[in-house]
This record gives sequence, C-alpha cells and structure tokens, in this order.
Amino acid sequence: MIRKVNLKEKFASFDDTWSPKIVGEVNNFHVKMSKVLGDFVWHHHENEDELFLVVKGRLRIKLRDQEDLVLEPGEFAIIPRGIEHNPVAEEETHVLLFEPAGTLNTGNVQNERTVSNLKKI
Amino acid sequence: MIRKVNLKEKFASFDDTWSPKIVGEVNNFHVKMSKVLGDFVWHHHENEDELFLVVKGRLRIKLRDQEDLVLEPGEFAIIPRGIEHNPVAEEETHVLLFEPAGTLNTGNVQNERTVSNLKKI
Repeated sequence: MIRKVNLKEKFASFDDTWSPKIVGEVNNFHVKMSKVLGDFVWHHHENEDELFLVVKGRLRIKLRDQEDLVLEPGEFAIIPRGIEHNPVAEEETHVLLFEPAGTLNTGNVQNERTVSNLKKI
Repeated sequence: MIRKVNLKEKFASFDDTWSPKIVGEVNNFHVKMSKVLGDFVWHHHENEDELFLVVKGRLRIKLRDQEDLVLEPGEFAIIPRGIEHNPVAEEETHVLLFEPAGTLNTGNVQNERTVSNLKKI
C-alpha cells in the first residue's frame, strides 16, 4: 500500500535536532527530514549533491566562496558535491533533504554530530 | 554561484500544464516542476520511482489496486517503479517532482502528452 506523507504531521513526530530521519526512498535516493537549530559543522560531500528544502523556519547555508544562502519556507538549494558548506539556523527550522542513499550528514567530517544509522519514520 | 529556488516565483514563470520543467539536478536525479490540470494518462515507469510533492492545489493519483492518493499542499507520495498510476487535478495544481534524470512523464506510454525534451528553468 502506497501512503502519502504529510510534512507537518511527520515533523511533529520527532523532536531531536541535527538527526535526519528517512521518510522515503526514490530508487537509490533518500528523502530525509531534519529539525535543525544552531550551528552545524563545515563539511563537504565527496560524491553527493544535496538538496535542502525549507518547510518551516529559516536555514542559512554558509559557503566559502560566495554569500550565504538564506532559505525561507518554500525555497530550496542544491549544494554540489565537493562544495564546503555549513548550515546554520537561528530558530528551529524544518528541512526536507534529498540526496543519494548513504550520504553522511557530516560528509568528510566525523564528529559528535555524525549520524550514521538513520531512523526510518 | 549556487542560487536558491523560490518555488512560488518559479511556478509563476510558466503557464503551460503537463509540461514538466527541470529546476535542479542532484547527482543523476532531476527536480522538476509541473502545473497540472485535468486528467493525465494511465502509465507506469519501468525502472524509475517517482516522488510527487504538492505545492498548491490538490493532486489525485489514481491507482489500480488501492484507493486514490489525494495530495494537498505539503504532502508527498512516492510511486514505485512498475506501479500503474494516473494523476488527475480538478483545479490547477503545482507539483514538485523528484525522479531519475531521463524519466519520461508518460512512462511506458507515448502519446500527445509525452514530453521528451524538457526545458530547464
């Protein structure tokens, strides 16, 4: 049975931040949801592009070679592989992510923010 | 330079229905936008799963073996490869699609609705 996902309801089903959950699979890609608040970590992904779509709040994506991207609800950006970035949120922000399965949230960096076993919700 | 996409502004940039536009690439996947109104065509995709996220309006996805999925704004569904479906919209509906590059809108069917050269916007 194919079920739809209501983003608002699904975001209401968890509270932790910086811990992406898998909410769908499209071939070898994962759809993830993450609540974010505060500063993350500078990192890049060696082989994976990464799409960020803001559903609630405001996401600032810091970049090394251009001005920050500031995403409001209904806005998305794609960070190409190899590009260092650091997502930051001053208020609790709800983000839908789209990226190849297996993409690690902290990319080339391993630290206390790294989540390698993602929960499916 | 990485640019963000504002969905509302981008949807305002075209008028034609059932003609998906490419608005982003994530590795070998395409992010597409489509305005839809009326009935489409029963079809399936041999190898591609397909994500539909409704941004405005209401999308009914007819399925052979279960009740229709009715997607409101902020809701998405993933139709797995091989599953026959027919999207229908009673009012103008704005849909964000996520699927492997090269996915044909009409899947296994070729008819007047088939769009094989997608515009990038």
